[in-house]
Amino acid sequence: MAVAIALSRRGRPSSAPNPNVGCLLVRDGKVVARGWTQPGGRPHAEAVAIAAAGEAARGATAYVSLEPCAHASPRGPACSDSLIVAGVARVVIAAQDPDPRTDGAGITRLQAAGIEVVTGVLPAGARAAMAPWWTRQVEGRPFVTLKLATSLDGCIALRDGSSRWITGERARAHGHLERASHQAILVGRGTFEADAPKLDVRLAGLADRSPKKLLLTTGGAPEGWTAVASPQAIADVDSVLVEGGAGAASAFLAADRVDRLLLYRAPILIGGGKRALGDIGLTDLAEAHDRWRLSDSRLLGSDRLDVYERIRTY
Amino acid sequence: MAVAIALSRRGRPSSAPNPNVGCLLVRDGKVVARGWTQPGGRPHAEAVAIAAAGEAARGATAYVSLEPCAHASPRGPACSDSLIVAGVARVVIAAQDPDPRTDGAGITRLQAAGIEVVTGVLPAGARAAMAPWWTRQVEGRPFVTLKLATSLDGCIALRDGSSRWITGERARAHGHLERASHQAILVGRGTFEADAPKLDVRLAGLADRSPKKLLLTTGGAPEGWTAVASPQAIADVDSVLVEGGAGAASAFLAADRVDRLLLYRAPILIGGGKRALGDIGLTDLAEAHDRWRLSDSRLLGSDRLDVYERIRTY
Repeated sequence: MAVAIALSRRGRPSSAPNPNVGCLLVRDGKVVARGWTQPGGRPHAEAVAIAAAGEAARGATAYVSLEPCAHASPRGPACSDSLIVAGVARVVIAAQDPDPRTDGAGITRLQAAGIEVVTGVLPAGARAAMAPWWTRQVEGRPFVTLKLATSLDGCIALRDGSSRWITGERARAHGHLERASHQAILVGRGTFEADAPKLDVRLAGLADRSPKKLLLTTGGAPEGWTAVASPQAIADVDSVLVEGGAGAASAFLAADRVDRLLLYRAPILIGGGKRALGDIGLTDLAEAHDRWRLSDSRLLGSDRLDVYERIRTY
Repeated sequence: MAVAIALSRRGRPSSAPNPNVGCLLVRDGKVVARGWTQPGGRPHAEAVAIAAAGEAARGATAYVSLEPCAHASPRGPACSDSLIVAGVARVVIAAQDPDPRTDGAGITRLQAAGIEVVTGVLPAGARAAMAPWWTRQVEGRPFVTLKLATSLDGCIALRDGSSRWITGERARAHGHLERASHQAILVGRGTFEADAPKLDVRLAGLADRSPKKLLLTTGGAPEGWTAVASPQAIADVDSVLVEGGAGAASAFLAADRVDRLLLYRAPILIGGGKRALGDIGLTDLAEAHDRWRLSDSRLLGSDRLDVYERIRTY
């Protein structure tokens, strides 16, 4: 299942609006096919794996990171039907599909066809791998990542606004990779005016992955940009990378709309420069605790990247 | 030699005003004795090891983190003489003693007695282990550690000043351990007024290690405290821990008098609170780089401690 979940990440973010799912077909202890949701959302992961396996799918075990769908569409048959037709013997599922058109119906259909079904294998890992789609599906809002690039003392620029460069090349390249994995990036008015021409993915081979551009503003947006009036008002995307500046970052934090925090930190001290955040509505220090969990930490050149995830209990 | 250097750290800070030295005696591939500079600076590391070894010192190799002294004092004989009398066959030295009373004279005396001498083995490690004494000896100033305990966005308190607690118990206990390893702690006026009664070492068994208390002020100091007018004006101590607040920290950084940075960081966001630093005189971002090198990083509960050392080239 861990492999199926890893495969699912390959469909992110290109599988939108469909969930990025991974599928592994195993027969006699050997992997006979792998699949993940293709760009635009079709074919689904199961369809890709079944096509690759051919006759080898018969009698195999399918590991899927999300319950196979039960709803056919003009773009293809339901995956639960495809698995039955392919003759798989057993289906192992990480997470049940929260989409009301499936939500258990895929499992029921497989079982009715005499297929053994195991559910709930590494569900948290599968949900994390498809967090953008899951957040949109279950909560009706996008999964938001906030990126901050600061000095050790939490500054994002000198007092005069100069911020080139705080972090080094490797950290900045990592930031571009993060852009490529999001459907949209968002900046506030100040960052827009300072950096607008540069908010593209500048990595070889990924230039076509430049995300939709959102501007947090109560006014209008120029061509190529979409105006967003508030953190609550984002439509049509599953994942948003909030890039700056302090105003936009603070607005999203104050609204508790940040799910993941990317903290790039350079080994420098600025002192008295522009700070990463303004007021986020905190009045009691105790309330600041137990909200963020470190999920990754790595050195990028001489900079450190710490990734924190918002601890949420639904 | 790495073991001798590790032993030398046991004498810190109690060996002051003498250097904290480590000594290992090895004969026939076996460690026959160990020693480090005792509280108050005597006996020296070599004397401790020679006394422990007895006859086993004859023909042994002595590993010492600092060149054995060549100057006798009313408190004891010169260590180079003691090693000759003990009959060691070989002396391996990490760093040559910058004290003008030795500074090569110890090596010369050992060689004149027919002892094989090897020098320059792990000198940087030895210097780092006795950084406080070395800094005082070579630069005529104390070795200064700056401690900052911040949120992820670089705040040391809420806007209203409340700072209990940003970091957790383990990080705070580590901070007390750092106090115990310094000869003096220093705070500014604001921190003094807020926290003065609490600036002791509160760790079982180390209460008697509470360091000298310095107050950065142009005025006088209350009983039990010593007034220090500027970062350049500290006398009589080898090591100072600057504990806060932002004013004191910024003054030491602006004067480039910080050698080591302890950065305790809690996984919380404050936003718009009190910042760790004020102006430190930086006007060009390029000048902020290549000044600090990460020397240690560890998790203390859910907090992270990053230790940075000032890169200095003399």
